Amino acid sequence: MKWESLGSEPCSLARTVAVIGDRWTLLLLRDCFLGVRRFEDFQSRLGISRTLIADRLKGLVGEGVLRKVAYQDNPARYDYRLTEKGLDLQPVILAMVHWGDLHYAGQDGPPLLHRHRGCGCDFHPVQTCSECGEVVTARDVETRPGPNWETVMGMP
Amino acid sequence: MKWESLGSEPCSLARTVAVIGDRWTLLLLRDCFLGVRRFEDFQSRLGISRTLIADRLKGLVGEGVLRKVAYQDNPARYDYRLTEKGLDLQPVILAMVHWGDLHYAGQDGPPLLHRHRGCGCDFHPVQTCSECGEVVTARDVETRPGPNWETVMGMP
Repeated sequence: MKWESLGSEPCSLARTVAVIGDRWTLLLLRDCFLGVRRFEDFQSRLGISRTLIADRLKGLVGEGVLRKVAYQDNPARYDYRLTEKGLDLQPVILAMVHWGDLHYAGQDGPPLLHRHRGCGCDFHPVQTCSECGEVVTARDVETRPGPNWETVMGMP
Repeated sequence: MKWESLGSEPCSLARTVAVIGDRWTLLLLRDCFLGVRRFEDFQSRLGISRTLIADRLKGLVGEGVLRKVAYQDNPARYDYRLTEKGLDLQPVILAMVHWGDLHYAGQDGPPLLHRHRGCGCDFHPVQTCSECGEVVTARDVETRPGPNWETVMGMP
């Protein structure tokens, strides 16, 4: 399956998956949120080929999730930085980290702690409702067709 | 890369990615949260081979994200249902849907609406701090080594 084929899929989840639903892309994005910016650093952390790294970075730049910023001329060298659209992915990454912490961290506890600058505490993300502010769990949610439903593949 | 190789990775994000960081797995999980339970229904919705579906379902059952429940004998037929561990993935899926809605929904609006049973309103998920309850955005978060840090690959 090519990116393009899912990029034209009307379902929002499928579109997100087309952009970031690849394990190397997700690991690259984790590193972006940890402050990694340079090609060589991504490569040394992930330990995969330059071709794989270059392909994923190109895709993320093409989608406007990362932007290239020159930090050197002759030869040209670039940082890869999260755009605002990329920063909007932080709740996705943090929710994934939290699920891993919940179910796989073991006795030693989580490898990384996240501190909320606002209150100064180590925290984990809690999903709340944009309308009433209450905590939302899976059983609190009903899904129904929206205005763009016709173009989505129907329920069985 | 095999599941096993990342399953031994100490980073929580890498472990989550090893379990769900595959586009077909993510699309299967979306369908689980929409109430799809049967092999044939997953297959007709995703339009991919039985082998691919069977492989992803087996992986999710093996990780305890889904459980098989017999609904017929002779021949045996099974539903695939989310476990509690699987339901814990809902914030991940909903965060991904919301990012797709934000950046790809277009003029027609989102294809699916999510209603919060608690207040009765259509909502989108908002990430908040487990300690103070305030909204948390990407710039509000500092990441630092936790008690299990030594085993995580270091920062460059």
